[in-house]
Amino acid sequence: MLPIAVDAMGGDRAPDEIVAGAVQASSTLGIPVALVGDPAVLDGLDTGGLEVFPASEVIAMDEDAASVRRKKDSSLVRAAEAVRDGRASAMVSAGNTGATMASALLRMGRLRGVSRPAIATLIPVPDVPGTPPTVLLDAGANAECTPQMIEQFAQMGAAFATHRLGIERPRVGLLSIGEEETKGTPMVKETNALLARPESGVNFIGNVEGRDIPTDRVDVVVTDGFTGNVALKTMEGTLRALTNAVLAAMSASEEAKRASEVLMPELLPLYERLDPDTYGGAMLLGVQGVCIISHGSSSARAIVNAVRVAKDMVEHGLVDELAKVTTTPS
Amino acid sequence: MLPIAVDAMGGDRAPDEIVAGAVQASSTLGIPVALVGDPAVLDGLDTGGLEVFPASEVIAMDEDAASVRRKKDSSLVRAAEAVRDGRASAMVSAGNTGATMASALLRMGRLRGVSRPAIATLIPVPDVPGTPPTVLLDAGANAECTPQMIEQFAQMGAAFATHRLGIERPRVGLLSIGEEETKGTPMVKETNALLARPESGVNFIGNVEGRDIPTDRVDVVVTDGFTGNVALKTMEGTLRALTNAVLAAMSASEEAKRASEVLMPELLPLYERLDPDTYGGAMLLGVQGVCIISHGSSSARAIVNAVRVAKDMVEHGLVDELAKVTTTPS
Repeated sequence: MLPIAVDAMGGDRAPDEIVAGAVQASSTLGIPVALVGDPAVLDGLDTGGLEVFPASEVIAMDEDAASVRRKKDSSLVRAAEAVRDGRASAMVSAGNTGATMASALLRMGRLRGVSRPAIATLIPVPDVPGTPPTVLLDAGANAECTPQMIEQFAQMGAAFATHRLGIERPRVGLLSIGEEETKGTPMVKETNALLARPESGVNFIGNVEGRDIPTDRVDVVVTDGFTGNVALKTMEGTLRALTNAVLAAMSASEEAKRASEVLMPELLPLYERLDPDTYGGAMLLGVQGVCIISHGSSSARAIVNAVRVAKDMVEHGLVDELAKVTTTPS
Repeated sequence: MLPIAVDAMGGDRAPDEIVAGAVQASSTLGIPVALVGDPAVLDGLDTGGLEVFPASEVIAMDEDAASVRRKKDSSLVRAAEAVRDGRASAMVSAGNTGATMASALLRMGRLRGVSRPAIATLIPVPDVPGTPPTVLLDAGANAECTPQMIEQFAQMGAAFATHRLGIERPRVGLLSIGEEETKGTPMVKETNALLARPESGVNFIGNVEGRDIPTDRVDVVVTDGFTGNVALKTMEGTLRALTNAVLAAMSASEEAKRASEVLMPELLPLYERLDPDTYGGAMLLGVQGVCIISHGSSSARAIVNAVRVAKDMVEHGLVDELAKVTTTPS
């Protein structure tokens, strides 16, 4: 397998944690990994003998996506080029999300027939252990969407759920504000009608609501990138606030602390299942290559998981599967 | 004070729990309450001597809002009429949300200058005890909104935060997918520009993200009713799934159960703060009267709290305050 190109310069904890994660993925999982970044910087770190694709520039977390056009020797652009040129099998970055999408789109190009790539994220189902996560897309690539774009997201999301999560006939739901097909904006109603046609090729279960996302009622939830991003971040904020509150309660007294120690073995697996690092990041679906967008705050552990996810996607030929299912919008 | 009209027939647990809550609010809080419903049904229950406004029809939870025009003698329509006619100071219903809004709008009418009423909900800030909840609106009354409508929601939400929650200069944030004013849909960008003008009269802190809603970073979050409803229900679903998972972990073994009993005194206040029944329900802002929309699953406790909230709103003259701050859309 060609190496997975890890953007060593992107992310709040770059380069140290990113490089540590890349080295760990290579040494413990045996996955070939290459680092993309400034050799002068990487020389000072323990890179475990990993191959380095040189890139002299860095796109900062707060630059706009257009920076991709100016910084042609940035680690992000070089990572995407490595995939395009057949020197890498996939790219992973915890850097600037907009610039990551732009690099992948500009250098790898769209899949034939796909009108817009979408960001797919995995949402854990915390109260039903063993249930695969829900695939939510678009989680922020396209603030405005047409019904035709969302139909393609449904097709790509379903193929992803089948080939990555092993769900044979994934249930696809359209995010709305009521289950009835008459609920929602005109765009949502039109999308509902489109997805309900047999030609969509997906197992459409109708509208779902925000409360259904982290449950086992639905496998793939599709929406526009604005709503999807709001839903994703609302979940993150709710989880964080609640986790903080529970942790505070657990350390409120010596007695509470002792009781919490007893509970820890039961709570840790839940905590792990909810940790965004567990899934390694979001996937950009619809480009001609595998592109994993890790959380900006990614730890070494998140990078290890992102590399593992990238390898799985490459080995399952996911890009080819996506190309098969997307119908050209009418 | 005129009685608060409680729709005895609306809600998953009507009429028993609703009537029990109304009786309790009257007897323990000393708030005058009238029941609206079918006397034949109410005669069979312990109504504690509360006045009854008769209404022979019931609008079911799954009927559409147009049912309000057909069922002129329904408890919802009669409750709204009681407010309009000066026989009640406010209405409370745990019934059909769309029909509740329609009844209030048709019978009470809009506040002068208000283009559309909005549903305001209170979102707890779980990890900072003592912090007032965040006001989120529109939580579902208007799936599609113009920037001018959202500007009015901001004005009404801020007045609500001041007069109900005691926040002197509430920070108003616009829900988007990034803090930069360039983020979001064209409608959101236009709304950002509108709110940033001094003429808006609100303390606008710019865009906020979904993760900011349950935090003390912002006091009032405004958005269209589609996005607001998705955010609200996503929060509900996340809380429910996480609570289920934590409760399962706490009863996984005898040892865990004993430890959990020790923790209960610390966790209960948090549980209470997160229980939607604590706030009694959402408020319909922008109509000529006080209208509380309680959760469909409301218990007697939720109804007691809803009656208390309604009384507070009446006593604080909240409808007049809202009328003062809303500028006629240009």
